[in-house]
Amino acid sequence: MPERSPKWQARRQEIVDTSARLFARNGYHATGITELCEANDLGKGALYHYIGSKEELLVAIHDRVMDEVMGGADRVAASGGSPSAQLAMLGDELLDIIDRYPDHVWVFLHEFHVLTGDNAKQFSGRRRDYERRVEAILQLGVDTGEFRDIDPWLTARAWLGMHNYTYLWLQAGGRVSARDVAKPFAELFVRGIGKPTPAK
Amino acid sequence: MPERSPKWQARRQEIVDTSARLFARNGYHATGITELCEANDLGKGALYHYIGSKEELLVAIHDRVMDEVMGGADRVAASGGSPSAQLAMLGDELLDIIDRYPDHVWVFLHEFHVLTGDNAKQFSGRRRDYERRVEAILQLGVDTGEFRDIDPWLTARAWLGMHNYTYLWLQAGGRVSARDVAKPFAELFVRGIGKPTPAK
Repeated sequence: MPERSPKWQARRQEIVDTSARLFARNGYHATGITELCEANDLGKGALYHYIGSKEELLVAIHDRVMDEVMGGADRVAASGGSPSAQLAMLGDELLDIIDRYPDHVWVFLHEFHVLTGDNAKQFSGRRRDYERRVEAILQLGVDTGEFRDIDPWLTARAWLGMHNYTYLWLQAGGRVSARDVAKPFAELFVRGIGKPTPAK
Repeated sequence: MPERSPKWQARRQEIVDTSARLFARNGYHATGITELCEANDLGKGALYHYIGSKEELLVAIHDRVMDEVMGGADRVAASGGSPSAQLAMLGDELLDIIDRYPDHVWVFLHEFHVLTGDNAKQFSGRRRDYERRVEAILQLGVDTGEFRDIDPWLTARAWLGMHNYTYLWLQAGGRVSARDVAKPFAELFVRGIGKPTPAK
């Protein structure tokens, strides 16, 4: 089987997903290569054939989330909606990802500091790209007068904290669905930064 | 030196703080007893004399944060302010703790799932107590008509995410101080859940 064939890619993705579950349950450091081999039903050589190293596996888990996250941000940018509509749509996209990839997101938010060298740099860069998308929507709202004169940098961090942190309690089949959360969150946030409508 | 003397307690606290710094930098699992001994300038026997076990050290780090957090919540409850004033004050207290204990909070939010048995149960209980304080303020605001008809459970989680998540970027001497963050966060949140003032 030649490397990078669709079959190889699919098997690799499967390994990434299985390993994310293991890391999310037991932690990255506490999970050994032996357990990764067992969970993926592979020998050590075969595992390395797919993943290269344990850190590369972590990179792949991060990329899986970041690809989705940036894809969502692209759709929002292409939508051409008002700043508040864009912000609501971005929250909807983000919560949907957190809901669909709970293990990946757990690993993503808990173990990103384990990455070293270029891996760490690349990850920070992608994360920063996303933060800039949030800041840009907020800045647009300030510029058009839809939002108050808020600090886009600080407000983006409020928004990110509110949404990202849902990974701790947003569970498939849990009390609330991603959509049940996205709507009231968007309402709270947009009211919070919106200009009060003038008295008639 | 008899155990539990003020001197013993002070030395133990020092060990807890030094170890929190180490865990925050390198992770709980990756930090061995040897490194803890070196950082605290103690032999293995002496270290265990103060901390009992590595997990007890984690418990002590959690308690150090939770004691402060609950102390803040008690002050807010005793203040007798309006729901929005209480919420602003609670945020101020919480961000101040995150600012003063960055290492402890990092360990607290990253490694709580490492706790086992009664330790895990006790920690969840204290955490739940705090969440209930936030929910109670929100419920009070709904009852008095100061807030919209929001879901206190869900809204408490938005508030907690927004505030707790600051540990990732709120740094001593950083771009913004805890107070610089608490004020706009409170404004955003209270506007977000407040009833629009009726047109005059």
